[in-house]
Amino acid sequence: MERTLEARRETVARAEAPAARILCEAIEFETTTAPEFIDVTDDVVSIVDAAGVQFGQVTVFSQHTTAAVKINENEPLLLQDLARLLSQFAPAEAQYEHNDFTRRTVNMNEDECANGHSHCQHLFLSASETIPIVDGRVSLGRWQRIFLIELDHPRPRRLLVNVVGTG
Amino acid sequence: MERTLEARRETVARAEAPAARILCEAIEFETTTAPEFIDVTDDVVSIVDAAGVQFGQVTVFSQHTTAAVKINENEPLLLQDLARLLSQFAPAEAQYEHNDFTRRTVNMNEDECANGHSHCQHLFLSASETIPIVDGRVSLGRWQRIFLIELDHPRPRRLLVNVVGTG
Amino acid sequence: MERTLEARRETVARAEAPAARILCEAIEFETTTAPEFIDVTDDVVSIVDAAGVQFGQVTVFSQHTTAAVKINENEPLLLQDLARLLSQFAPAEAQYEHNDFTRRTVNMNEDECANGHSHCQHLFLSASETIPIVDGRVSLGRWQRIFLIELDHPRPRRLLVNVVGTG
Repeated sequence: MERTLEARRETVARAEAPAARILCEAIEFETTTAPEFIDVTDDVVSIVDAAGVQFGQVTVFSQHTTAAVKINENEPLLLQDLARLLSQFAPAEAQYEHNDFTRRTVNMNEDECANGHSHCQHLFLSASETIPIVDGRVSLGRWQRIFLIELDHPRPRRLLVNVVGTG
Repeated sequence: MERTLEARRETVARAEAPAARILCEAIEFETTTAPEFIDVTDDVVSIVDAAGVQFGQVTVFSQHTTAAVKINENEPLLLQDLARLLSQFAPAEAQYEHNDFTRRTVNMNEDECANGHSHCQHLFLSASETIPIVDGRVSLGRWQRIFLIELDHPRPRRLLVNVVGTG
Repeated sequence: MERTLEARRETVARAEAPAARILCEAIEFETTTAPEFIDVTDDVVSIVDAAGVQFGQVTVFSQHTTAAVKINENEPLLLQDLARLLSQFAPAEAQYEHNDFTRRTVNMNEDECANGHSHCQHLFLSASETIPIVDGRVSLGRWQRIFLIELDHPRPRRLLVNVVGTG
């Protein structure tokens, strides 16, 4: 028999503060391979600790179209599985219209490289994750870690960590 | 001829409140099979109703790496299609490095089970959904329902429903 | 050698405001084909400009289960790749239980059409994206554009653009 919502729920935060507090930090990363799963959880936790926000949320946002942000478990063999899955889904060596530089008319860089697969993989991942903050802590579950995922080639990357809440 | 933004837009909420109001509720679920799509919309709506937040947003967050949160339509035959798609994408019976317990060195539980497929399916789903609150109501579209999706095996699961806004 | 977080981070916003400011605008779109990638970035930027919010975030939310919101690059050949990938992943002509109107018992419309593939594609996309606002600007990276993606057939669609922050 299904228990009622009242029996299944617990209030973990309730706040009415006379001020909204916001902190946004940009963090730089140098990726070293692709796909690469960089565990950024400790950085996010440090920033939330320093923000002095007791309740609210933190959004971890990738400013890139070929580097994603996702939550999963940080177990080395699993990361191999996830990398293999991404490659299967949109292999680097497959044909992409985006890689046909003879026909491209927009968004061409000097250092343009064939990264159609990276954009395709990104389509099914995400640019951001949003996590509740309770009692000043990022409320991740036991196995949850936040990853910046490099899908293209090694390069500098930039995350925004945006904390919105009350002090 | 394309209409201007002015002609296509409508202001549905505008608020400047002297206080930020935040409520976070944890809800427990007992899943019974996998994949299982549990419609949690009514629970989320009840919590937002009780929060006394007129404008802002609600984030529904799964604290698990093998249970996801997604919005889709609650039509029983469709849920069969979605389940089949998840299985096709990352079948439970395929080989995963994560399932090779002879080589795993970290994150081993007493009750560890072979769930590489669940993590792989989770990679392309999400840990959370964020929905606007307008006039105290969760602004879902006509067919939108919020699901907790069990990807692993039946067990207790925990969602956070984090309401951030103004009273 | 890995640089410390202090060396890699930069504070881009810090605010403690005596009021929370919220604006939610609904925008209508008429889609013309499927899949169709409609670049809604300029609309979102206009709304954030008008909201008078200096710091916080904007959530772009699709009120539909067969139209998604995603961030990617707006390069015409790439959009062809993304469309092809969606079709490969869940082809319109494949068999879906959801399309068997002889067995459907719920959610039947007068104008119901066979759109199982659209719901399946939506499962691996998202209903929304959340982007930080810094100094009154939507903090997208250089190549990032926000898309409404029509997955079903041409029709009116509705996005909510929900701005939450401080003035």
